[in-house]
Amino acid sequence: MIICRTKQEVQSLMGDWRGEGRSIGVVPTMGALHEGHLSLMDIAARQCDRTVATIFVNPLQFAPHEDFDAYPRDLEGDGAALSDRGCDALFAPDRSALFPADFSTNISVAGVGENHCAVARPHFFDGVATIVAKLLLILRPDAAVFGEKDFQQLAVIRRMVRDLDIDVRILGGPIVREADGLAMSSRNQYLSAEERAIAPALFRTIREAGETISAPGARWDDVCERATKAIIAAGFSSVDYVNFVDASTLDPLERAGPEGRILAAARLGETRLIDNIAVAPVRAA
Amino acid sequence: MIICRTKQEVQSLMGDWRGEGRSIGVVPTMGALHEGHLSLMDIAARQCDRTVATIFVNPLQFAPHEDFDAYPRDLEGDGAALSDRGCDALFAPDRSALFPADFSTNISVAGVGENHCAVARPHFFDGVATIVAKLLLILRPDAAVFGEKDFQQLAVIRRMVRDLDIDVRILGGPIVREADGLAMSSRNQYLSAEERAIAPALFRTIREAGETISAPGARWDDVCERATKAIIAAGFSSVDYVNFVDASTLDPLERAGPEGRILAAARLGETRLIDNIAVAPVRAA
Repeated sequence: MIICRTKQEVQSLMGDWRGEGRSIGVVPTMGALHEGHLSLMDIAARQCDRTVATIFVNPLQFAPHEDFDAYPRDLEGDGAALSDRGCDALFAPDRSALFPADFSTNISVAGVGENHCAVARPHFFDGVATIVAKLLLILRPDAAVFGEKDFQQLAVIRRMVRDLDIDVRILGGPIVREADGLAMSSRNQYLSAEERAIAPALFRTIREAGETISAPGARWDDVCERATKAIIAAGFSSVDYVNFVDASTLDPLERAGPEGRILAAARLGETRLIDNIAVAPVRAA
Repeated sequence: MIICRTKQEVQSLMGDWRGEGRSIGVVPTMGALHEGHLSLMDIAARQCDRTVATIFVNPLQFAPHEDFDAYPRDLEGDGAALSDRGCDALFAPDRSALFPADFSTNISVAGVGENHCAVARPHFFDGVATIVAKLLLILRPDAAVFGEKDFQQLAVIRRMVRDLDIDVRILGGPIVREADGLAMSSRNQYLSAEERAIAPALFRTIREAGETISAPGARWDDVCERATKAIIAAGFSSVDYVNFVDASTLDPLERAGPEGRILAAARLGETRLIDNIAVAPVRAA
């Protein structure tokens, strides 16, 4: 696996591959890789001739009170995992390689980038859209793969890429879960043993809510409210939201028709966990 | 000259030219072309093998009370002028070709995109940055040429292109003036005969201010204030600003050193005119 630390290095490599007619698939990450990320590498490898992972803990998407400094970093371990998985190149730039001191451009996505996670993290999706645009324009891959665990993030990226005419296919990879249902996340390593035992209740609850919503006559608002209470009852500290939405617009789903999704975010002590589940087919309420 | 009305048409043409190894230079415009625009085509032609003009009156950069509907449109005349000047292709998309109904992405540039024209037109540079990013990503030219008449716009585009890693050279073209010094502008055709006679006072005043500022011991704030009064005295309705700035950051220039620029905007009846002038070398105040 080739490791690139600068834009010039990675662009030279991409240029060589494009010159050989190779298609390129990219998996942008913040490192602290787990099977969820590695499954995205597999998708990239099935779709493209060459695969690139990027590892960059993006300062733009952390608020001052959030966990930028504490975010887990293990470049050596990540590199070994990527190499074992057959990844062809790793782009792991320093902050200064991507952000000049007077960097001042921001991309924001209204609609799909509002509500849900944007309520608690108002600048998060701007930070995501801006860094993803940069990475896509530096690497110019044929495809880029993002996990469905960050479902709103995926929607924001799809919209941004379409709106700005960035020439890349965006692919979503299914959520990878632990044996007990907990969605894999780099932030799971923040959990104490006690919190880790409580954590699977998030998925269990939204899965049950999805079954209830799919049943005829269900009152969707009530289902989300009951799910919120169930997550608290299971031991979570607080619930940011449990929302039932149209899977493409992320608008609240009020009648049957489009493909639905339940999105949820809740806190266990200091750790914020998110999860989501497809709800289909949606029947009349 | 080849005329393209859709993204697909123009991308196919660009792909053909790139395949032949031709470099491509683009001049993005809103039409109503004058010698200022055509001089930018000449710059593109000197720098690149193939030249493309774009004509699109960009709704994102007009506020609701501004002159979007009234903005002069003459696609036939513009096409003839471009063709006579040797332009190889014109991309003139409809609004729907660039903006799906649920378009919701915005690019904003802090710093150089603030103050000056942004005070009176707070969304203008977001609209410019967003459409220019789209056009550059659709066409993927080697170079794009913008007039220095819109000096802050040029600075915003340079910053956005650098910050987002868009792979294109941005070139600025010098202001083209009428015989009496008035900077050429599509909006000059809004002027009545009486206003047209007053209009050259804007350039005359900032040119004099530039000479004064270049003299040892000049008090720069006073010079800008006197210039404001002189523009009003000449018959302008109001002055949005006369600012002496660092030509790269557009921050107020307070001591000698960097290359300076006087930027000015003033109104003649309903018409807003802008102009600017290089002030160099800057000496100690």
